[in-house]
Amino acid sequence: MLENGLVLWFTGLSGAGKTTTARTLLESFRAAGRKAELLDGDEMRTTISKGLGFSHEDRMENIKRIVYISKLLSRNGIIVLVSAITPYREMRDYARSELPGYVEVFVDCPLEECERRDVKGLYAKARQSQLPHFTGLSDAYEMPEHPDLVIRTMEADVQSNVAAIINELAAKTGGKRP
Amino acid sequence: MLENGLVLWFTGLSGAGKTTTARTLLESFRAAGRKAELLDGDEMRTTISKGLGFSHEDRMENIKRIVYISKLLSRNGIIVLVSAITPYREMRDYARSELPGYVEVFVDCPLEECERRDVKGLYAKARQSQLPHFTGLSDAYEMPEHPDLVIRTMEADVQSNVAAIINELAAKTGGKRP
Repeated sequence: MLENGLVLWFTGLSGAGKTTTARTLLESFRAAGRKAELLDGDEMRTTISKGLGFSHEDRMENIKRIVYISKLLSRNGIIVLVSAITPYREMRDYARSELPGYVEVFVDCPLEECERRDVKGLYAKARQSQLPHFTGLSDAYEMPEHPDLVIRTMEADVQSNVAAIINELAAKTGGKRP
Repeated sequence: MLENGLVLWFTGLSGAGKTTTARTLLESFRAAGRKAELLDGDEMRTTISKGLGFSHEDRMENIKRIVYISKLLSRNGIIVLVSAITPYREMRDYARSELPGYVEVFVDCPLEECERRDVKGLYAKARQSQLPHFTGLSDAYEMPEHPDLVIRTMEADVQSNVAAIINELAAKTGGKRP
C-alpha cells in the first residue's frame, strides 16, 4: 500500500473532529520522521478553492482540486491527510478511483453532538438560515457505506483514535508501520 | 539552497519554450533519481484554477495557487518546475518571497519569434481580437529585471539550455549537482 502512496481521507460532519484527529496523526507521523502534509478543507477554501461556493458543482470542484494536490504529494512518497466534509458518495468514489493509496476514514459523530459542540458557530448560523447548503441540516451527508476505517469521537478521545488508526494501518500494510 | 527546496520558475511569453525546456529538465532530474514535478500553467488552468480568467486579479490568483502547491511539494524535498507566463513583476516578487528555493528562469525569446512559432495558434487568434488580455499583445509582459538564470531559445537548442541550467544550479549550490 505504502509504495503506491498513502492518502488518509477524513470524512464526516462539521465539528465531528476530522481536523483535530488528522492534526494529531500528522504530528505522530512527523515525530516518526515521516514526510506528511495535512490538506484541511477550511484552508483549501481560502487558497486553491477561493471563490467556490457550496453548490453541488462547486463542492465537487473543490474535492477534485484536493484530490489533484493529494496525488502530486502522495506519488512522491508524502503521506497525505485530508480533512474535508466530503459529503457525497460521488466525491469519495472519485477520490478512491484517482488515488492509489486512498484510505477512507469515517469520523463518526452524531449530528446532535456536532451541533452541541459547534466549535465554529456554524450550526447556530445555519439554523438562523444564514447558511444555505449546510451539511447535515440543509444539505445531505451521505453516510460512507464501506469506509476503510471508522473512528467515533464521542466514544474515544483523540489519542485513542490516532493510536487505533496507526494500528489499523499497520495491520493493512502487513505489520509494517507507515 | 537545496535544503530549503528548489523551485525553478520558468517565466516568458507564450511560445517562448518554457514547458519544452522544463519538461526536458524534469526528465533529466528523474533520470538522475531525483523526485521532481512540473506544474504547467496550461494544466493548472484546467485543474486548480478552472474558472479563472485573465484579468489582473484572476492571473494573480492563479499564480498564488501555483505558489501554494509549489510550497507543499518543495518543502518536502521535491524539485518543482513551474512553467507559467507569470507576466507581472508583482507575481514573481510574490513567488520569490513565498518560496525559499525560488530560482527565476527567464525564457527569453523575442515576441516576433514566439508569434512566428505560434505553436498553439493563440497569437493568430489574439490578432483577430478573439483573445483579450493576451500577453505581449494586449496585456503587458514586464521583463524580469533580476532573473537568476536566462536562457535564449532562439540562440540555443533545448538540450544546450537544459545543460546550461544544470551547470548554473551546480555552481549556485557549491558544485553539488541538484
